[in-house]
Amino acid sequence: MDKQSLIANVEKIFVERMPFNQFLGISVIALNAQRAEIQLPWKEEFIGNPTQKILHGGVISAVLDNVGGMLAAASIIDKLPEDELHTVANKLSTLGTIDIRTDFIRPGRGERFIASAQLIRSGNKVCVCRMELHNESATQIAFGTATYLVG
Amino acid sequence: MDKQSLIANVEKIFVERMPFNQFLGISVIALNAQRAEIQLPWKEEFIGNPTQKILHGGVISAVLDNVGGMLAAASIIDKLPEDELHTVANKLSTLGTIDIRTDFIRPGRGERFIASAQLIRSGNKVCVCRMELHNESATQIAFGTATYLVG
Amino acid sequence: MDKQSLIANVEKIFVERMPFNQFLGISVIALNAQRAEIQLPWKEEFIGNPTQKILHGGVISAVLDNVGGMLAAASIIDKLPEDELHTVANKLSTLGTIDIRTDFIRPGRGERFIASAQLIRSGNKVCVCRMELHNESATQIAFGTATYLVG
Amino acid sequence: MDKQSLIANVEKIFVERMPFNQFLGISVIALNAQRAEIQLPWKEEFIGNPTQKILHGGVISAVLDNVGGMLAAASIIDKLPEDELHTVANKLSTLGTIDIRTDFIRPGRGERFIASAQLIRSGNKVCVCRMELHNESATQIAFGTATYLVG
Repeated sequence: MDKQSLIANVEKIFVERMPFNQFLGISVIALNAQRAEIQLPWKEEFIGNPTQKILHGGVISAVLDNVGGMLAAASIIDKLPEDELHTVANKLSTLGTIDIRTDFIRPGRGERFIASAQLIRSGNKVCVCRMELHNESATQIAFGTATYLVG
Repeated sequence: MDKQSLIANVEKIFVERMPFNQFLGISVIALNAQRAEIQLPWKEEFIGNPTQKILHGGVISAVLDNVGGMLAAASIIDKLPEDELHTVANKLSTLGTIDIRTDFIRPGRGERFIASAQLIRSGNKVCVCRMELHNESATQIAFGTATYLVG
Repeated sequence: MDKQSLIANVEKIFVERMPFNQFLGISVIALNAQRAEIQLPWKEEFIGNPTQKILHGGVISAVLDNVGGMLAAASIIDKLPEDELHTVANKLSTLGTIDIRTDFIRPGRGERFIASAQLIRSGNKVCVCRMELHNESATQIAFGTATYLVG
Repeated sequence: MDKQSLIANVEKIFVERMPFNQFLGISVIALNAQRAEIQLPWKEEFIGNPTQKILHGGVISAVLDNVGGMLAAASIIDKLPEDELHTVANKLSTLGTIDIRTDFIRPGRGERFIASAQLIRSGNKVCVCRMELHNESATQIAFGTATYLVG
């Protein structure tokens, strides 16, 4: 498989094969080694604050962690030499979030939520992403920073 | 209502009236102004990594945020002078997580997960909690630190 | 005093009246309610790693905390109604960093370092800034996120 | 050299060979693979807030980063098989802080400050420490959490 197919595979794993992500209902807008963007619809089950009808903070952290993790995976694939592409499954199996910080900026109100990630540190063992969450009207809801183990 | 009843009410709101927490299935082990401890059972829907059958990081962050938030709420009630107890609903409506850091220590494997929180800073406007998550065998899974707006 | 003079005063306090900042040798490039930018020169005393001759992480965190704190102060002044400007000293005396996260991206090598901050949350009690540090060649060295008590 | 001498060497490097740490004036109370404890005296140059005469937040972050880094270094040495002890210099040269979070709890007032660290995650590539800072009267001043690259 070439790199593009391998990255498409990462999308599939995150969207279709992770039960918690199926509960979230995330779908991918864009994924390559430079940028990841995903979305999720509003659902009643996501509500944290019942009087305000806003997203639970845990849903927000989960979406930010997902979009950063997908970018970390795409970046692992992108950096693999062509003759080591067969080791990709092994490489991806060690991918994990070491730590994440979420900054909650505004109440999570909206019909659709878009999360995006950019790489700010990309190493052989560790990469760091900054993430953002906004709603369909481009209102910023949260920021995140996460460190991933990638090697 | 006295303080103890008000704190019992906080439990009820977090457990029964927040749809995302009902999905998580959390229940309260202990809650007072010094300490909060909650638990949640293993569920297939919580899986992040399908080959390893471990908790999604988002579930972990959500539980840590909940236990810290409950402690922050109990601490708001505890500090209210007796003659201002009627303002508690108003006070609690402004409670919100400002930021949270989660450190993932070990894979989230187990049958039951216990999250606890302690206050490390308790002010009139802001409080800070440190949280821990372990499983039924007392294996540490994650640590957290969160800052809450309380006034 | 008008707001612009009050903000100029904040510059003076950070640069001339804080002994640790005098050790750092920071100076202000720009400060208004939207953006803060400061710089510091390379000094041998800042070295953390003696073989690599790079900035100690503590110097980096200190500079990021300073630039975020200056922006938080400018934003306090900017939001004060004209007829409350006389309360500014009182307001600023409660300003403090609640928490800060620093992400170290590349070794702190350079002759001059520029730190900038932008507000991502601006409330009556708390504000949150994101900060960056780069050297004179525009190489990114670190990112930061900090929460300040402002009211 | 045996492990104990190698750890004593780490102390020496942090205390005597890092110019910024010489400015701070840190000394080591205890260092082994389980625990690190260091101290620093009050100095006028550390002042952040001139009216309150308290430590600058950057000094606090620096001390916490140091004590965590020393523990990370001791833990690298501790885990090396006896027949690989000659590679220790190489191993330690890659040691670096990836990210640190500091929580400021109380004003940094005192005559002497003691920082301690404990390992909460200890892996081959990354380790995570939690740190605390208190003064000579055991008043808690700050907490920290840091992730270090160790392999």
